[in-house]
Amino acid sequence: MVMNVGVIGLGLIGGSLARRLVHNGYAVTAWNRTPRPYDQARSEGIHCVDTLAELAAQSLDVIMLCNPLKAMPSILAQLHEVLLNPKVTLSDVGSVKGMVREQVREAGLADRYIGAHPMAGNEFSGFEASDPSLYDDALWAITVDEGSDLWRCAMVGELISRGVGNRYIVVDDDSHDRAAALISHMPHAVSTALINQLVDDDNRNIAAALAAGSWRDMTRVALTDPERTRAMIDEDAENVEALLRSMARRLDALADALHEGDHGGIAEFFAHGQAFRDYKAIERRHAGHDAAIHNGKEMTLALEDGGWQNTLLESARRGERIEEIAQTAHGYIASVVTGLGLHNIE
Amino acid sequence: MVMNVGVIGLGLIGGSLARRLVHNGYAVTAWNRTPRPYDQARSEGIHCVDTLAELAAQSLDVIMLCNPLKAMPSILAQLHEVLLNPKVTLSDVGSVKGMVREQVREAGLADRYIGAHPMAGNEFSGFEASDPSLYDDALWAITVDEGSDLWRCAMVGELISRGVGNRYIVVDDDSHDRAAALISHMPHAVSTALINQLVDDDNRNIAAALAAGSWRDMTRVALTDPERTRAMIDEDAENVEALLRSMARRLDALADALHEGDHGGIAEFFAHGQAFRDYKAIERRHAGHDAAIHNGKEMTLALEDGGWQNTLLESARRGERIEEIAQTAHGYIASVVTGLGLHNIE
Repeated sequence: MVMNVGVIGLGLIGGSLARRLVHNGYAVTAWNRTPRPYDQARSEGIHCVDTLAELAAQSLDVIMLCNPLKAMPSILAQLHEVLLNPKVTLSDVGSVKGMVREQVREAGLADRYIGAHPMAGNEFSGFEASDPSLYDDALWAITVDEGSDLWRCAMVGELISRGVGNRYIVVDDDSHDRAAALISHMPHAVSTALINQLVDDDNRNIAAALAAGSWRDMTRVALTDPERTRAMIDEDAENVEALLRSMARRLDALADALHEGDHGGIAEFFAHGQAFRDYKAIERRHAGHDAAIHNGKEMTLALEDGGWQNTLLESARRGERIEEIAQTAHGYIASVVTGLGLHNIE
Repeated sequence: MVMNVGVIGLGLIGGSLARRLVHNGYAVTAWNRTPRPYDQARSEGIHCVDTLAELAAQSLDVIMLCNPLKAMPSILAQLHEVLLNPKVTLSDVGSVKGMVREQVREAGLADRYIGAHPMAGNEFSGFEASDPSLYDDALWAITVDEGSDLWRCAMVGELISRGVGNRYIVVDDDSHDRAAALISHMPHAVSTALINQLVDDDNRNIAAALAAGSWRDMTRVALTDPERTRAMIDEDAENVEALLRSMARRLDALADALHEGDHGGIAEFFAHGQAFRDYKAIERRHAGHDAAIHNGKEMTLALEDGGWQNTLLESARRGERIEEIAQTAHGYIASVVTGLGLHNIE
């Protein structure tokens, strides 16, 4: 089916999403905090409204919250007042999921919520920077909990696969937020610690003079707005804390091995991550992740009441990607493609 | 003056150096472990000889050791036998300096040694990959100790400034090796610890699926040959150990601050390295480091017996670059350009 989608917030992510959905034949109604982007958005075929009540009055299937996280409580409180049709599913594009679900629950909207997070973005912002191709080959994470409706999950999945043309995985909030902490939030803190280490060194100007590619790569994210990084880490503090302690133990263990001349321990440190090097080498040979996944097998997973969340989580853990969740005569099934996966370290 | 330079080892670094010196009118005699690159080297105007004795028999001003570190002891032992002229200065291009000076001392050649390390290179190797432009805008570190001859330091400096067309700094071995540990060796270990963290995570395939630019940048060097990284860290083990422990304490301190909700501590962590962000922002505005330095002032430093090493170390610490060390009627002077420097954190 072709859906009616509401988009709240016409920034880079929301604007690009709205434009991509319109390109693919979806009807999109948008509301933005200020009408500044409306002229441009209307010329792109987006129906713009002045109030959230007007948005809620449309016959919508899904509303995507694409507003800044800090505006979330106030927008959710307003939606709770005006969003009377229980069939409308609420989703979002935030980069932390546990916190958003908590805010949705506090606003009394938990029943209709399915989380989502597209792996897309760049360093720009605002509708004027929006670009439907921002979503080319983007992978999404959908997040659910025990109380989530499978039909709502399937609908957000369809918006992603047919509306945007992307693949997705379905996981719980905590798995998402821990993974995001591992591959983004914690590394941002490590990068920041590196530049702190440099400025504290008496020979900082000598070090800065000798710095080459490895230093440049490892400190690039420390050069981005530290206030944004601080907020991102604060929102996922518990996971980041655990990962920082684990990283500190790894660095101390290598320091101990170097101190003791423990050649076996040093060798193990450098061999330990080989599965990831192999994974990246295969990915490179296939010229990018998505192409590598295309070489995967097609598979079908039966989704059962009370167990579908775990079936999809295990699928994501195996490195699979979902192409579609569909209703059949025998219930819901997920069509997935097997992925590369770090299989040799299972 | 135009020098006669001996180059030992015609790999990427030595071959590119020899070709650049020939382009600039220097006479270069080279020896390589095998004569494989000799035809190509001779066509580039490099005089190739079959033994180190033949090399030593030339009337050379400086010999640059451009061989692999593991071949150093054997080559130095041979040079000790054949290098009878005490006027010949010995230098090298190795990326760790304390260890090389130790090997030079053990070979009985310490009196004539001046260390050097060009910030140049790429992922290729061998004379066939050599390219004189590898040294475009490269900065060199020269390393000296209390016993070093200033005239030899000036001669290696002239080879760098007139022969290669680069600027340089002059520091002690330990300052060099600690700075190299800070901006390269330790970060390589941190990058490796990140991929170890990922492969140990139950949700590694979810994390790998969500990974984007920050993860890619921070793990790039962990994907390079781990055996080369291991060897590099082993050669600078003491400095790397201290830096790993310091980094571990920084990560633990941030973890503590997150745990305690210590907003002041978290804010300080993210503000601490601001001087480096400012430094890089200025560098970017000047489109690269060398251009930024060109905007610096020209200055002259008097070099005095017994104190010149420290004068030059302090200059490097201020972020200055040496253009020339010259002998005048009143003794040696260094012409330097003031650099960007991380001044606001002095």
